Amino acid sequence: MNIVILGFGNVAQHLVGAFLNSDDVTVVQIYNRSKIIDSPIQNCTTILSDLIEADVYIIALPDDVIPNFSEKIPFENRLVVHTSGSVPLHLLSDKNNKGVFYPLQTFSEDRVVDFASIPICVEATDNANLNALKKLGSSISEKVVEINSEQRRKLHLAAVFVNNFTNHLYHISEEIINENQLDFDLLKPLILETAQKMDALSPSQAQTGPAKRNDKKTIENHLKLLNDAQQTGSLDASVPELYSMLTQSILNKNHGKKL
Amino acid sequence: MNIVILGFGNVAQHLVGAFLNSDDVTVVQIYNRSKIIDSPIQNCTTILSDLIEADVYIIALPDDVIPNFSEKIPFENRLVVHTSGSVPLHLLSDKNNKGVFYPLQTFSEDRVVDFASIPICVEATDNANLNALKKLGSSISEKVVEINSEQRRKLHLAAVFVNNFTNHLYHISEEIINENQLDFDLLKPLILETAQKMDALSPSQAQTGPAKRNDKKTIENHLKLLNDAQQTGSLDASVPELYSMLTQSILNKNHGKKL
Repeated sequence: MNIVILGFGNVAQHLVGAFLNSDDVTVVQIYNRSKIIDSPIQNCTTILSDLIEADVYIIALPDDVIPNFSEKIPFENRLVVHTSGSVPLHLLSDKNNKGVFYPLQTFSEDRVVDFASIPICVEATDNANLNALKKLGSSISEKVVEINSEQRRKLHLAAVFVNNFTNHLYHISEEIINENQLDFDLLKPLILETAQKMDALSPSQAQTGPAKRNDKKTIENHLKLLNDAQQTGSLDASVPELYSMLTQSILNKNHGKKL
Repeated sequence: MNIVILGFGNVAQHLVGAFLNSDDVTVVQIYNRSKIIDSPIQNCTTILSDLIEADVYIIALPDDVIPNFSEKIPFENRLVVHTSGSVPLHLLSDKNNKGVFYPLQTFSEDRVVDFASIPICVEATDNANLNALKKLGSSISEKVVEINSEQRRKLHLAAVFVNNFTNHLYHISEEIINENQLDFDLLKPLILETAQKMDALSPSQAQTGPAKRNDKKTIENHLKLLNDAQQTGSLDASVPELYSMLTQSILNKNHGKKL
């Protein structure tokens, strides 16, 4: 299969890297609005009318530009997909065959990820295109699943909780650590084990801590520490309230059980 | 070194398992209020007055019982430590030499953890006891650090964010997933990568997502999805509010930058 990648941000760069390691897929061209320095492939363009023939065109651009961009593509009846978790299929232009190729992972610059384990969520309007996307996904991942737009929105929402919000909790804890002349490295084994536990336990089984135990004394002590830190300006004003809300949300799960 | 473990909950069981693999330390006795079925060592007791001589006594019991329990120990001038993140050293009885031996990790039943990478935070009232605890820690871990009670409280508070609260975010995402006939396994590579990223990036560098980008449209869509789910009773009432607060807390970090 020959594919063209449209855009060269984080997701695009990681996808190109993955496809370059695949025997079944060739990235024949990369389009980007600005010139690409050090492109991994020869054929790059900044001009839409220069786009060459390919089996699949993958738009890896910010959510809000995807609809307009798909409209501006200067050809018809080819397979054009995007990589977004939250943009519905129908927002792609009707000029071309629509599809979604959503790799469910967080991509950072300069960080290699193992695509084999990354779920690729695909969607298309007919079986032929769906099969093409499944084949494309299988060339880089062991887990390709068909997910419709409605489910994908929910999946992306759930991903925000386990990735963006979790990372923000790391950030808050790093601030508490730094403020007290401690080393964030101390928390890294705990951060890793908390995630690794999910391989064997459900989140409900894995839950521990003061809120789970309804340990009011520790909760009060923690809130006092946070309020003190917040008043001296070393923590964001939202943190004590976040602690209270997360604690209450865990307590709600206990269903009145005294644990 | 000969040690006695007092209590046989999760932390105690994991500690005993770790010390059994150590050449330098022998667990000579385990005390527990109720009789231990299938004890890993011979000498177990439910009677405090049966406690035998040892170099260190490790109280691995719930926070709120530690002070009283340490008072009831029927001997004096030996080294008695607890394993709690939030109980200050001074709450141990003055009858014995006080210390803390806090393994900074989350322990679940039936889950083996690699002690070598777990930070052991030690505290004592004099150098001789501190050195004994450092030696004890080094027998099972490559990372033994001296941390005073005040720092340990903060460390424990930070641990609540990266472990208990993070696990609760996993729980919320699992509910969103289940409600939509999706498979929680889809999120596991993301959960793991979010944690593993901390080896190479700071939380601030690793932050991505709608809040980081100030992507108001996606944030509004997510809140609508959560409010709908909450109204049909499939999500806890606290979840939409949690989404808003975590989003706002991330936005506060952007310092007004339009990203």
